[in-house]
Amino acid sequence: MSIPTQRTEQGSHRDQRTHVAALHNELVRYALVAWTSGNVSERVPGEDLFVIKGSGVSYDELSWDGITVCDLDGNVVDGVRAPSSDTAAHAYVYRHLPEVNGVVHTHSPYATAWSARGEAIPCVITAMADEFGGPIPVGPFALIGDDSIGQGIVATLAGQRSPAVLMRNHGVFTIGGSARAAVKAAVMCEDVARTVHLARQLGEPLPIAQADIDSLYERYQNVYGQR
Amino acid sequence: MSIPTQRTEQGSHRDQRTHVAALHNELVRYALVAWTSGNVSERVPGEDLFVIKGSGVSYDELSWDGITVCDLDGNVVDGVRAPSSDTAAHAYVYRHLPEVNGVVHTHSPYATAWSARGEAIPCVITAMADEFGGPIPVGPFALIGDDSIGQGIVATLAGQRSPAVLMRNHGVFTIGGSARAAVKAAVMCEDVARTVHLARQLGEPLPIAQADIDSLYERYQNVYGQR
Amino acid sequence: MSIPTQRTEQGSHRDQRTHVAALHNELVRYALVAWTSGNVSERVPGEDLFVIKGSGVSYDELSWDGITVCDLDGNVVDGVRAPSSDTAAHAYVYRHLPEVNGVVHTHSPYATAWSARGEAIPCVITAMADEFGGPIPVGPFALIGDDSIGQGIVATLAGQRSPAVLMRNHGVFTIGGSARAAVKAAVMCEDVARTVHLARQLGEPLPIAQADIDSLYERYQNVYGQR
Amino acid sequence: MSIPTQRTEQGSHRDQRTHVAALHNELVRYALVAWTSGNVSERVPGEDLFVIKGSGVSYDELSWDGITVCDLDGNVVDGVRAPSSDTAAHAYVYRHLPEVNGVVHTHSPYATAWSARGEAIPCVITAMADEFGGPIPVGPFALIGDDSIGQGIVATLAGQRSPAVLMRNHGVFTIGGSARAAVKAAVMCEDVARTVHLARQLGEPLPIAQADIDSLYERYQNVYGQR
Repeated sequence: MSIPTQRTEQGSHRDQRTHVAALHNELVRYALVAWTSGNVSERVPGEDLFVIKGSGVSYDELSWDGITVCDLDGNVVDGVRAPSSDTAAHAYVYRHLPEVNGVVHTHSPYATAWSARGEAIPCVITAMADEFGGPIPVGPFALIGDDSIGQGIVATLAGQRSPAVLMRNHGVFTIGGSARAAVKAAVMCEDVARTVHLARQLGEPLPIAQADIDSLYERYQNVYGQR
Repeated sequence: MSIPTQRTEQGSHRDQRTHVAALHNELVRYALVAWTSGNVSERVPGEDLFVIKGSGVSYDELSWDGITVCDLDGNVVDGVRAPSSDTAAHAYVYRHLPEVNGVVHTHSPYATAWSARGEAIPCVITAMADEFGGPIPVGPFALIGDDSIGQGIVATLAGQRSPAVLMRNHGVFTIGGSARAAVKAAVMCEDVARTVHLARQLGEPLPIAQADIDSLYERYQNVYGQR
Repeated sequence: MSIPTQRTEQGSHRDQRTHVAALHNELVRYALVAWTSGNVSERVPGEDLFVIKGSGVSYDELSWDGITVCDLDGNVVDGVRAPSSDTAAHAYVYRHLPEVNGVVHTHSPYATAWSARGEAIPCVITAMADEFGGPIPVGPFALIGDDSIGQGIVATLAGQRSPAVLMRNHGVFTIGGSARAAVKAAVMCEDVARTVHLARQLGEPLPIAQADIDSLYERYQNVYGQR
Repeated sequence: MSIPTQRTEQGSHRDQRTHVAALHNELVRYALVAWTSGNVSERVPGEDLFVIKGSGVSYDELSWDGITVCDLDGNVVDGVRAPSSDTAAHAYVYRHLPEVNGVVHTHSPYATAWSARGEAIPCVITAMADEFGGPIPVGPFALIGDDSIGQGIVATLAGQRSPAVLMRNHGVFTIGGSARAAVKAAVMCEDVARTVHLARQLGEPLPIAQADIDSLYERYQNVYGQR
């Protein structure tokens, strides 16, 4: 573990905290959050640290100093704000999934509605096959305050392509190779949660064959975007 | 009761009226109100007064002088606008609930839909356990114009953790230790009203055990945010 | 009938056209319109004229010269744009309802959904009793191009308190003592159409007694707002 | 086929690329797209070329150089971005439908929900008769990566008035005489997909007689707007 950085007037890791603060704007833009709920974190490259939103900090006021630096046990290392009450869950993910560098949590309404029924979102649109490679699974009910939520996230995502999990009666956690990728997964999770909800309201969506899901997922992960 | 302040060009309690005027922007931002409906009030610290939105004043034009100062019987003490037509209900709450310093009223669409069916919102998501500590209850049908609405609010919230009540066929009233806290409750009320509505559209939400609701509520009220 | 004003570089009735152009922003703000659909008109005080949005003019570009001046038969008197394709309907209303000074037409989604089923919106929330004084009625199916739509509006609103009518399979027309009042009615019509839709999705809304509807309507029309 | 333009610092077809970049703002404004999904293309007048959004480019950063110039086989002719992963579908449409000069693709939520059930949108509101002249049809399920999607679009739209097709389990493609016209069709497609969805949630929409649909379509195509 890294030696804790001293708290200074300037603040350590200021560029990364500024970047993560700005990423929270996407949660607001896509209406994934209400009031101060929701949070984004990102692992600090090359250090056993991550940066995460302060608890209950307003999105309007969120700049670098609204983001707190924690070690991988969730202890504060630098910052003027108490970290998110979900810090233990983020820390657990970083300790157990070394390839994950970004984590996002929201209570976005359509995805949370699926979670309240304990129902996985079936993969019935191609955009969902692209991004999630199959259904978005449901994790267990877990109380905040210890490692239960983190354990539920890690256990549920094991062996799944999906970077999103619906924690039962709670909301969404997404993971990614960067905070930006996890934010994208949170945005797309709500988007497909809504579209599949709408489809189901008036009947049964048609299935997509597993081979087609596989083909779409492979292509999107390897061909889409700029290389 | 305080001696009524004289009306002056400057206006009394201008800082608090400016603050309460600005809080109304949150009702607009979260689409809790249409046209001029909805209102926020706040008790004046140390005086038997409160400040409240003027009746039918446009949100675009709302600055300190769109907020009127009333005594706890709802009589105008200072201001250039007739106060909200809901002033009697706010006044009743301030007279009977001394710990309440802020009241908000909206017709936010999902919460009002529950109220039109006379149905309490069941506590099936953790964000609702956090903020409301149980179901959001339904108050009686009451006509505007006397103390009926205020009585319904106070009687319904007695013995409940919820800072929100759905007045039947009408809309939402929320209370708080400050106007800001009551506004937060109004925002979160619509947020959970929508999520639980969406969950119910496609089946039955899973219940959360009462002990878990209690645990979530205790933690959120005591640990969340900055201390 | 007034003598047609000459078309000039400056344009006649420029202040009123500027005012009516600006009122269209409310249709955009409340998402009542898509692309160039929807229109607002207003009678010219003291003249047998009204001003109305140009046909297919973009809301982004709408200033005074996007508004055309017509006589009460719908003939263009001044303006650089062909008037709305709904001009005949507006003109019919002004000819037959002398107390009406503003007309608005939208295809706002929830209200249009009720119109597509040919179903009046029942008066089950107090905000609807306030503004509409009862149900929002459905008018006949009518083709554009002659007086059919105008006749349907006028015949349906006769003997109703509601300033809004749902034209079958089509959308909403609202009337008012000014263009601003008709715009307010269009905003509130969509608001209550949505809330009652949401209420109905999960069960049956509770009725409001007719005497209570009457009482709410009387009070709102006479007491609400600034006098 | 035109001789490929050299890539220069300045970029070829810069005015048209600026115009097409700006049209993407309408997809954002009407919430038809999430994150980087969706794309607009336009044929270059008088050349066997079209311009199209770069793959995975953020809407916030989209200016002329986020738009790539391709030949009608989808090969890049000029530009600094790999073109949309849907380029082959756009190219197929331009090769087979010479009257088409603009193509738009989105996963807009209500329209995509209809596509997930494989259900055409019935023509039950007059705005839909105006713009689409009948139902919005459903095309086949097709994988990305070859001409399958393009073939599905062209085959499904043959003999239809509708400028929009719902590709099964996927989303919307629209065509037009210009990119702007195709964008309008995408906006109106989502608008009517939503209204008819809402109508169907609470019962069965009333049909519009075919003769009335024909009459509305003829009028709108020939009379609406400025001539």
